[in-house]
Amino acid sequence: MATLGAQKKHKVTVVGSGNWGTTMAKLVAENVVAHPKLFEEKVQMWVYEEDVTIPKDSRHYNSERADQPQKLSQLINNLHENIKYLPNITLPSNVIANTDLVDSCKDSTILIFVLPHQFIGKVCDQLKGKIVPYARAISCTKGVDVSEKGIQLLCESIGKKLSIYCGALSGANIASEIAKELYSETTVAYDPPPMDSRAPTPKVSPSSSQVDLINPSKEVPGQRSARLVPLPTEYPALSHENIRKLFHRPYFHVRLVSDVAGVSLGGALKNIIALAAGFVDGLGWGDNAKAAVMRVGILEMVKFGKAFFAESAHTSTFTEESCGVADVITSCMGGRNFRCAKMSVERGESIGEIEEKELNGQKLQGTSTAYEVNAFLKSKGMEGDFPLFTAVYHILEGKLKPEQIPEIIEPKD
Amino acid sequence: MATLGAQKKHKVTVVGSGNWGTTMAKLVAENVVAHPKLFEEKVQMWVYEEDVTIPKDSRHYNSERADQPQKLSQLINNLHENIKYLPNITLPSNVIANTDLVDSCKDSTILIFVLPHQFIGKVCDQLKGKIVPYARAISCTKGVDVSEKGIQLLCESIGKKLSIYCGALSGANIASEIAKELYSETTVAYDPPPMDSRAPTPKVSPSSSQVDLINPSKEVPGQRSARLVPLPTEYPALSHENIRKLFHRPYFHVRLVSDVAGVSLGGALKNIIALAAGFVDGLGWGDNAKAAVMRVGILEMVKFGKAFFAESAHTSTFTEESCGVADVITSCMGGRNFRCAKMSVERGESIGEIEEKELNGQKLQGTSTAYEVNAFLKSKGMEGDFPLFTAVYHILEGKLKPEQIPEIIEPKD
Repeated sequence: MATLGAQKKHKVTVVGSGNWGTTMAKLVAENVVAHPKLFEEKVQMWVYEEDVTIPKDSRHYNSERADQPQKLSQLINNLHENIKYLPNITLPSNVIANTDLVDSCKDSTILIFVLPHQFIGKVCDQLKGKIVPYARAISCTKGVDVSEKGIQLLCESIGKKLSIYCGALSGANIASEIAKELYSETTVAYDPPPMDSRAPTPKVSPSSSQVDLINPSKEVPGQRSARLVPLPTEYPALSHENIRKLFHRPYFHVRLVSDVAGVSLGGALKNIIALAAGFVDGLGWGDNAKAAVMRVGILEMVKFGKAFFAESAHTSTFTEESCGVADVITSCMGGRNFRCAKMSVERGESIGEIEEKELNGQKLQGTSTAYEVNAFLKSKGMEGDFPLFTAVYHILEGKLKPEQIPEIIEPKD
Repeated sequence: MATLGAQKKHKVTVVGSGNWGTTMAKLVAENVVAHPKLFEEKVQMWVYEEDVTIPKDSRHYNSERADQPQKLSQLINNLHENIKYLPNITLPSNVIANTDLVDSCKDSTILIFVLPHQFIGKVCDQLKGKIVPYARAISCTKGVDVSEKGIQLLCESIGKKLSIYCGALSGANIASEIAKELYSETTVAYDPPPMDSRAPTPKVSPSSSQVDLINPSKEVPGQRSARLVPLPTEYPALSHENIRKLFHRPYFHVRLVSDVAGVSLGGALKNIIALAAGFVDGLGWGDNAKAAVMRVGILEMVKFGKAFFAESAHTSTFTEESCGVADVITSCMGGRNFRCAKMSVERGESIGEIEEKELNGQKLQGTSTAYEVNAFLKSKGMEGDFPLFTAVYHILEGKLKPEQIPEIIEPKD
């Protein structure tokens, strides 16, 4: 057994407490109780403090205290519910809300990042040097930073900033459904370099067997600076098996892979595909057309991975895993990007107008990803190799009509 | 050029004139006109004669002749519309309806089968010995014959009965959408043995390079009896390029593959997946669960192909082609199997009751395929290797509840 001889247990912190973060905290807290030899019982959840007024439709509404704002963290710890971001879901009592970022991560060997993309950098800056050097992280925030300069996987940014290894979790995962314990699946990519002797041997990149660096990736130079500190032997190994025990639930099936690049790219690129599917569906072209655009999109994902992460991204991650094909399906069934793109065609309005009217100040991930990916492809002279991604960009720019998608993506051979 | 020196042109017959058959005839008739050096101008379409009364909502309705039944074939040739099976779609004038099966196929070098599954055998019996021996066929009827005895691909049955080569066409293809020229894609599998010197060299089965037999397949013994007669050199070669010209349209994108087994299996097995997706959606479990079941189903397709057509079926046919992933998507968005399975859970009625009430005497393909596949798997002692397919069978049998799907398909590793 992997835990034999281990005297210490892993302490787990969920960094983030929004809709998805609270859902992850609930799920992980259930699992640490189920595996008491591996994990400490309390799961810390870092909460960005807010004043909250309990809404009338909440089961915790009390007319006598109706207008008194209360601290979100206290409400979570007292009511075992995040009434603002995950209402009506009872959290296990071993989820401990903590507003002190550094304190919440103190001595934690497992950090689960579930923050909006834009806060990741700042939070890592605050944590730098304040965590145990042998901690490991998993990023549940999807995405990549793409620009003309190159592509940086979000988990690589986290790993680099904190000088620790960071994997990724992504899948067809609408948080509210998982919080209700409705069945779903996810993909966890975890592939630390082999210098961590008890970690799984990477099957992926030939280069990573030579260099004991964090997230080695040929495409992002300057990232190989930090050396990974091995996990002390008193801890149970963070094998695929034990990582799976942290996330897998009867209602949340986990598949472990080593392809960090594929998992990260899937979570970002699917939003471009969802826009394309929305445009075509908005034309009233039916299910054949929508399925065709989704299929072409999945193949452009595969091609993108092969072109820019040749040594790490696998075809099967996109075509067979929850983070690939299944997430594309979910996003194209009713996701936000899909819905807004569809409305924009149906109403003859720009997607920016739809965004403003429908999203309450929130921003579409798909449009920014489409622009960033296009800038990157342009810089490589490779727009023509990704006709669907490029078409979505040109539609957003008003230079192409959705009706032209078939002729643009028609195979030339 | 492949046509250089060819004095003869290919004569094309579409065997069938239902919704899908008439749509194929329209599409192929457009293409023969676009490629006059390759194909004869007239496309024969075999029509099973019926008396038809023009309905009131038809643009061809004439109150003076309102109650006079007319011959379907004559209506097609006079009005250039199949008012019964594809109303309101104008057919090219080079589609010639012909009620004489043997005459419609006389001298045709390309036979396109688009018949309901149950009529294929009888039609082939009538055609046997009456067609040119060097004819080639494509089956647009999806499916396989599965029983305890084994699996026979429908195109193999056709090829064997007629002693000719038969490929397969399958994809995310709702006929009515294609008839309206709404964008879609399809997959054509065409891989005649190499003895036809100008045919594409099969990349698939090592055995087929040694034996010049029709559709060699290890799993179906007794099928290698007929030898293929080479296409006379006066005809343009039936290369992938030229087959593509017969089917590809700006609104109907064709990908050619050599994997006849994969294309045929995809068209059959997707119906079991659609039932599973319907059951889960009927529970109100949301989009994560539906996407998960679809993903698991695609992987069981892959596994089925590998287990029983190891030398021919390719993973990529299921995960990357229109006949695989895209057809699964379309079928699980609004297909008949999906809808009936969903209704059966929502209303708490058996799928047989739903079938009777909702389908006007038509039968669900998915239920019979689920039973046949289960009988076959049982005979091999392999039910446990295909937990989703097996779960669908047990749900149909009333021995399992849809709610149990997650625990049944939960990976054990």
